[in-house]
Amino acid sequence: MNLSIRRSFASDNNAPVAPEIMQAILASNEGDAIGYGDDAWTARAVASFREEFGDNTDVYFTFNGTGANVTALSSLLRPWEAVLAPASAHLQTDECGALERFNGSKVFPIVTTDGKLRPADIEPYLHAGHGVHFPQPRAISISQATEFGGVYEIEELRELCEFADRHGLIVHVDGARLANAAAALGTTLRALTVDVGVDALSFGGTKNGSLLAEAVCFFDRGIHAGAAPFVQKQAMQLASKMRYIAAQFEALLTGQRWLHYARHANAMTARLHAHVKSISGITVTRPVRCNAIFATLDRAVIERVQREFFFYVFDETLPEVRWMTHWATTPHDVDEFANCLERAGA
Amino acid sequence: MNLSIRRSFASDNNAPVAPEIMQAILASNEGDAIGYGDDAWTARAVASFREEFGDNTDVYFTFNGTGANVTALSSLLRPWEAVLAPASAHLQTDECGALERFNGSKVFPIVTTDGKLRPADIEPYLHAGHGVHFPQPRAISISQATEFGGVYEIEELRELCEFADRHGLIVHVDGARLANAAAALGTTLRALTVDVGVDALSFGGTKNGSLLAEAVCFFDRGIHAGAAPFVQKQAMQLASKMRYIAAQFEALLTGQRWLHYARHANAMTARLHAHVKSISGITVTRPVRCNAIFATLDRAVIERVQREFFFYVFDETLPEVRWMTHWATTPHDVDEFANCLERAGA
Amino acid sequence: MNLSIRRSFASDNNAPVAPEIMQAILASNEGDAIGYGDDAWTARAVASFREEFGDNTDVYFTFNGTGANVTALSSLLRPWEAVLAPASAHLQTDECGALERFNGSKVFPIVTTDGKLRPADIEPYLHAGHGVHFPQPRAISISQATEFGGVYEIEELRELCEFADRHGLIVHVDGARLANAAAALGTTLRALTVDVGVDALSFGGTKNGSLLAEAVCFFDRGIHAGAAPFVQKQAMQLASKMRYIAAQFEALLTGQRWLHYARHANAMTARLHAHVKSISGITVTRPVRCNAIFATLDRAVIERVQREFFFYVFDETLPEVRWMTHWATTPHDVDEFANCLERAGA
Amino acid sequence: MNLSIRRSFASDNNAPVAPEIMQAILASNEGDAIGYGDDAWTARAVASFREEFGDNTDVYFTFNGTGANVTALSSLLRPWEAVLAPASAHLQTDECGALERFNGSKVFPIVTTDGKLRPADIEPYLHAGHGVHFPQPRAISISQATEFGGVYEIEELRELCEFADRHGLIVHVDGARLANAAAALGTTLRALTVDVGVDALSFGGTKNGSLLAEAVCFFDRGIHAGAAPFVQKQAMQLASKMRYIAAQFEALLTGQRWLHYARHANAMTARLHAHVKSISGITVTRPVRCNAIFATLDRAVIERVQREFFFYVFDETLPEVRWMTHWATTPHDVDEFANCLERAGA
Repeated sequence: MNLSIRRSFASDNNAPVAPEIMQAILASNEGDAIGYGDDAWTARAVASFREEFGDNTDVYFTFNGTGANVTALSSLLRPWEAVLAPASAHLQTDECGALERFNGSKVFPIVTTDGKLRPADIEPYLHAGHGVHFPQPRAISISQATEFGGVYEIEELRELCEFADRHGLIVHVDGARLANAAAALGTTLRALTVDVGVDALSFGGTKNGSLLAEAVCFFDRGIHAGAAPFVQKQAMQLASKMRYIAAQFEALLTGQRWLHYARHANAMTARLHAHVKSISGITVTRPVRCNAIFATLDRAVIERVQREFFFYVFDETLPEVRWMTHWATTPHDVDEFANCLERAGA
Repeated sequence: MNLSIRRSFASDNNAPVAPEIMQAILASNEGDAIGYGDDAWTARAVASFREEFGDNTDVYFTFNGTGANVTALSSLLRPWEAVLAPASAHLQTDECGALERFNGSKVFPIVTTDGKLRPADIEPYLHAGHGVHFPQPRAISISQATEFGGVYEIEELRELCEFADRHGLIVHVDGARLANAAAALGTTLRALTVDVGVDALSFGGTKNGSLLAEAVCFFDRGIHAGAAPFVQKQAMQLASKMRYIAAQFEALLTGQRWLHYARHANAMTARLHAHVKSISGITVTRPVRCNAIFATLDRAVIERVQREFFFYVFDETLPEVRWMTHWATTPHDVDEFANCLERAGA
Repeated sequence: MNLSIRRSFASDNNAPVAPEIMQAILASNEGDAIGYGDDAWTARAVASFREEFGDNTDVYFTFNGTGANVTALSSLLRPWEAVLAPASAHLQTDECGALERFNGSKVFPIVTTDGKLRPADIEPYLHAGHGVHFPQPRAISISQATEFGGVYEIEELRELCEFADRHGLIVHVDGARLANAAAALGTTLRALTVDVGVDALSFGGTKNGSLLAEAVCFFDRGIHAGAAPFVQKQAMQLASKMRYIAAQFEALLTGQRWLHYARHANAMTARLHAHVKSISGITVTRPVRCNAIFATLDRAVIERVQREFFFYVFDETLPEVRWMTHWATTPHDVDEFANCLERAGA
Repeated sequence: MNLSIRRSFASDNNAPVAPEIMQAILASNEGDAIGYGDDAWTARAVASFREEFGDNTDVYFTFNGTGANVTALSSLLRPWEAVLAPASAHLQTDECGALERFNGSKVFPIVTTDGKLRPADIEPYLHAGHGVHFPQPRAISISQATEFGGVYEIEELRELCEFADRHGLIVHVDGARLANAAAALGTTLRALTVDVGVDALSFGGTKNGSLLAEAVCFFDRGIHAGAAPFVQKQAMQLASKMRYIAAQFEALLTGQRWLHYARHANAMTARLHAHVKSISGITVTRPVRCNAIFATLDRAVIERVQREFFFYVFDETLPEVRWMTHWATTPHDVDEFANCLERAGA
């Protein structure tokens, strides 16, 4: 693909770095700093996390989302302990089996219509299998926002976490787009995690204006029994020049910039949604809550639009496309794209 | 469980060792023998396998069925290559994630009604996922006989193997009960494997009269690119006193003893089936083809019968039980068990 | 190698099965038995282990020595925790990196002249490396008897275990030939393990008259935090027909048969040693304590003798050979072999 | 450590990002870009690598040095294939066993006086062990510059690579500081790698002025048999916003900036060396070739200087310290540090 891109609607990871984040990187580039996180930027970024998620929060920065998920789950699971995840989970479909390879843990993919897990989906695994022969379900991993652009309501999260707790299961949230979910629900990050009983979080910065910045948060420092620092290192996620990742997080968590970026991304998707609802031949296939729209439309139309804008066909068989917006998408970008869609369908 | 067992209907692995197999072990216990397979018994056993499956067969003995499946698949798959298997596969539900831990490979469990995979089940995985992000489907693993006591017809196997071949997939058969399937279908072992295009086989002896004896067969010596001997060793499946495993296989493959044992096991199940069909309150839930019957019956009846005979409740929610017979089950055992079932339901 | 063997001096794993052990296998072959260790033979074998090693002993049977070592260490080590072992350890040189592959743990091989580790060898690792960057030394693994046919004295073991304890290290003994060491030292098995503070043991039966029978013992049931049953299963070391392994151990531990076999093996080596000391051109290179002799002799002589007797050149560069005896080696065998050596050198 | 740092002499990873590299990051922050390397910056960076190392160079960017080493070696080694490395290798002492955990491969650490491997060090491993029992030596991994600040001369590299080639071994270079070595030797990067027969390279940017930028280069595209893209992904080293890593490499390789930074770092070490040679009480312990000095001095002196400057005690037992300089170290920094050393020792 060598398309000269104006604005991509393919993924929020196609976005540039937000100016405040880039400024923070530049500002951190003064003089020497001790490696591996023993620096002032990291200390401040960790403090920001604790302000956001509570004092008992244990934070580890990673390079990418797969690194965050694998570090989080490998710190909590022994190799015979399994993860229950939606069949649509990034962990299941987009991490090339990194968890299986690194930690040996099995993932049980659970088919759901909307990419959300509920207690009834977990129930059958509670007493499945025969003793040591069956991989032991130990963690539930959910994505908030979901891979289909949906969100778990706070009450759904609480119910799932309570269910997990009653059955000795840990709850991990893949929050590559937690900011978008919080923006959509009008809540704090904490209300979606610590407050409802989530145990571990992969918190994404990269898709929300950062250069590359992901973090693993444990909300009870004892839960990983000292494993996390070693897992982070073995998982090749420990940066020597940590200050440059920390500075991004400090900037992102300051003055609710994370919320500002995410709200904007969501608003641009809402704007696009308003447009496409009225374009005949386009059927929006899933609830639009955050910064993604899923839709089916004619294959020929898709091809015509892809000549001008970059986006992915999510499911070739239908075909179903995914359109995403991000912190840098402008109303003008959206309108141009919508016009293009409209023209292409004419 | 400290029940003094008369005859177990729980599993064919509850059986004793058949006299001809035990005799072969005793006969091999003469003098010294070089370790790790460099002995006359192993040479003869390998020759027997080649006679049965063809000259290009490459054989490795393992200690148990999980060892065989993991050795077979780990010799063929790189860690980012995935296995497509029925959700009911032993590999998925009864090996505690050994393959994931040892080889890092993902298993995609495919839900089917009868535990059998067909091309249409595989189709959706052929173009699933996005490039390197998605674990690459590389092998299909099926169980013959299935975990539900069913069998693949030769034509079904051929169709699946041809489909696999067209799409660059390898076919592995978990043949812990291949003998029972061959007996049921009235075919040779070869007709169910090499002749239809199967690439690799876990061939079971333990459930068919042996003490402990499993084997991995590759039907094209080049297919594992030299990996298998090292995989067998690293998977802790290389016996020093190999002659005692080899002798079992030589005995099993001589004069079609494998067929004799399996036919008997199947016949005992047929006899039991004939009985229970007429017992009211027992519903046989799956086709009876080999040496297993699945049935639903009243929970109280189950408990009464379990006081006298050992067997497993396969699915607690229904409840559905599994009854198995083996080479040593006698008509008298069957009749006693059937009588007990009848009395318990009265 | 298709040499017709009379008596091998290559390894104690070239031996046949002792009659009492084979008799026990035959005796266990009565009727059905529940799989995976839930049977009377396993219960009795475990009781025998507890009688030998104390009531707090937790026992898991495995198929081979690599399986025992990997099961023991993987139950105790997290993947970033390392093993300190002599560079000559079976774990290091003869298990094809099975521990690394299965558990991810690093082995630090420590060069020693006699294959024995002492506190001074461990000392440099106590403060080596920088924090999370360095694999964390957590276990010491020693072989008793050593791979060079030597033994640790009780006092040496005690000193090593106390040192380990002071520094938070676990002590594992690879006791593939623990019986030979106990015979050489005139002690109980317990005196060499529990009583001196060993934490985990791989106890070998295969090289001491069994068909295939190895066991992992933990002397504090809490030490593996519930891991061992799952590790045993994932490591492909859980036998379905467990009674046939258990019966061997019951027989081996009954009436000190283990001692009887080991003493005989050692005595045959002593007899051979007495012979070869007087043969010119043969230099015994290491202390002879158990059932192995290491010696250098002329390469041409080696080749002549190998035409009649099977044994290994241990170190091709010198060349240094290893001669081993076992429970079934007879005085006549030894004398014939010694005569052959003498003639060959003439 | 909460020392307010003026200039660190601890490690070249304590350095800030060089202005030209930071400028390149800023310049790349324009508009959207497709993720995972399908962008113009990556294409140009790869072209720069091919210009530097030859057209057959296959390049993969990673996040850190451990990620580069693990990606390189895991693309080339099967889990039973072992690496021969100096006992001082970063791979052995500073990557927390990441390779063992991720790929299962054993590392054989070879003790050398200067951290350099020579054919004579490898020789004993060529015929070590017995068949499948011994992990199969397959790769040699060396560090250029070495962990002791030394360099391999071109002739040494050629000899090692030819030796490796004759014996079917692959040569991997951990080039975290390859630039410093090339600067020291006055050669091109290519002269130290492709031209002498190196097969794979971890090329470091982070320690040479970059923010975070490491690359794996294979000099024969076929050598990894298609593994590398999947390994990179599973090793959690595939960046979504790849342009920000690529832009750094493009800048680094443009106009020989890599050489400019490395030369400066080396020159600052030479300047420091000139100073300390004349300070009594300081003994430089290893040849000074690149940007590191190793020295022994009085423990009390070390402590006094550490109150003002940050650096590591490399070996606590002597004590031996390591002092490093980098692209941003100034002559004034060096002089201040030298003065401090002088005063502290007075």
